[in-house]
Amino acid sequence: MVLPKLTLILGGAASGKSHFAERLAIDSGISVTYVATAEAKDAEMRERIDRHRHSRPKHWRTIEVPLDVAAILQKPPKGVILLDCATVWLSNQFLRSETGLVTEKDRLLEALNTCSVPVIVVSNEVGTGIVPTNSVARSFREAQGRLNIDLAAIAELVVLVVAGLPQVLKGEFA
Amino acid sequence: MVLPKLTLILGGAASGKSHFAERLAIDSGISVTYVATAEAKDAEMRERIDRHRHSRPKHWRTIEVPLDVAAILQKPPKGVILLDCATVWLSNQFLRSETGLVTEKDRLLEALNTCSVPVIVVSNEVGTGIVPTNSVARSFREAQGRLNIDLAAIAELVVLVVAGLPQVLKGEFA
Amino acid sequence: MVLPKLTLILGGAASGKSHFAERLAIDSGISVTYVATAEAKDAEMRERIDRHRHSRPKHWRTIEVPLDVAAILQKPPKGVILLDCATVWLSNQFLRSETGLVTEKDRLLEALNTCSVPVIVVSNEVGTGIVPTNSVARSFREAQGRLNIDLAAIAELVVLVVAGLPQVLKGEFA
Repeated sequence: MVLPKLTLILGGAASGKSHFAERLAIDSGISVTYVATAEAKDAEMRERIDRHRHSRPKHWRTIEVPLDVAAILQKPPKGVILLDCATVWLSNQFLRSETGLVTEKDRLLEALNTCSVPVIVVSNEVGTGIVPTNSVARSFREAQGRLNIDLAAIAELVVLVVAGLPQVLKGEFA
Repeated sequence: MVLPKLTLILGGAASGKSHFAERLAIDSGISVTYVATAEAKDAEMRERIDRHRHSRPKHWRTIEVPLDVAAILQKPPKGVILLDCATVWLSNQFLRSETGLVTEKDRLLEALNTCSVPVIVVSNEVGTGIVPTNSVARSFREAQGRLNIDLAAIAELVVLVVAGLPQVLKGEFA
Repeated sequence: MVLPKLTLILGGAASGKSHFAERLAIDSGISVTYVATAEAKDAEMRERIDRHRHSRPKHWRTIEVPLDVAAILQKPPKGVILLDCATVWLSNQFLRSETGLVTEKDRLLEALNTCSVPVIVVSNEVGTGIVPTNSVARSFREAQGRLNIDLAAIAELVVLVVAGLPQVLKGEFA
């Protein structure tokens, strides 16, 4: 398929959203650069990162970028960029500085808007559980919700993945 | 657009559901009474209420009704009523009396059914996270789920908002 | 309607998924065996089980099977089997042995694949809240997400229920 300029893949935890995004990237037939936002800070994250890595084609180029994704998008390698995921990027920004978040989000959105190669962004739905008792968790889910709205507004194709099954929310498969 | 008698707008936290409901009310071309259920009991709620207020047209009439929404619906002002939101209303009822909830819900549903002007109700999806450890939170999400089912059953139009994008679950845009 | 070999009904807590699955079973016109996975270990569960039981037709046969659902599917009674639900089954397996889970899941999927009567499986969406702080809860939602993906992959019909309203994610109503 011909990838649009920006594709957003939404889904819950273990919904199959990363796998679906990887299929899209493979089916584009162009070379893939995988931008990984996760850092292996503990055993659980290491196990999760390794599991994801093993599910991806070995010839993909992987770049680990916990924070400055915008810089990559401004001078992208040829092919398609698969950013997995906006939620971990947001979490990394949160841990660094909650107040600097708005600026960083604007930078990311601007870089996505002007990126010269197609981009696929994976992001989490986190807002349909019960209100968290923890105030940082409440702030985070607000920020994640607004980021998803902003990403969806500029994406040509938005797909929600539920139990591995894609539902097109905006645009259509070419 | 011509508003049906009852419209239900569902979505998670920061999903864009309130914004979408406001667009519906504006596009109806008739005067809007905004029924706000939230009370500013702390700084976080005050900030949230102010943010919502600034996003709404200034000429809208706003009524703050934490509990007795049914009374407003029984003698409504002309135009359309935008009730934002059923989740905070339910939470207010919960805090007052969990046992009186069934009666209050029946009153609300009856008032919605017989209201002489169109009503748009905003409500939260809270049931697709992990089971809460807190038993009150478990009761609340059960009650919210059942309220959404009851509202959806009597609404002509039901829309689920995900990342700002509407998905029609019942009825259609006129 | 003519039931497919395997139907998966997904939804959040109190979304109306069990009620919808029961309607499907009734509308099939064939005799129903209800496989209940929940055990009444405390008052809250007893109340919930009783409420579900009272909503079902009295002539249905009910079998309580907290763990070995595969054995029932291998020698099924005539008619349709309604399994409610995969989430409680998964939770029961988790409590017994997290390490034995993969084997038990493979047994279940194999038994569903080869079952000689139509089966309707109810399962929960638990992955779209905030990341749980509890590591067992995180493991559980991963396992539930993957189980839903696996069930959806072999089901002919997959329906997501939101506020009592069905959305077909895969296949179609016959």
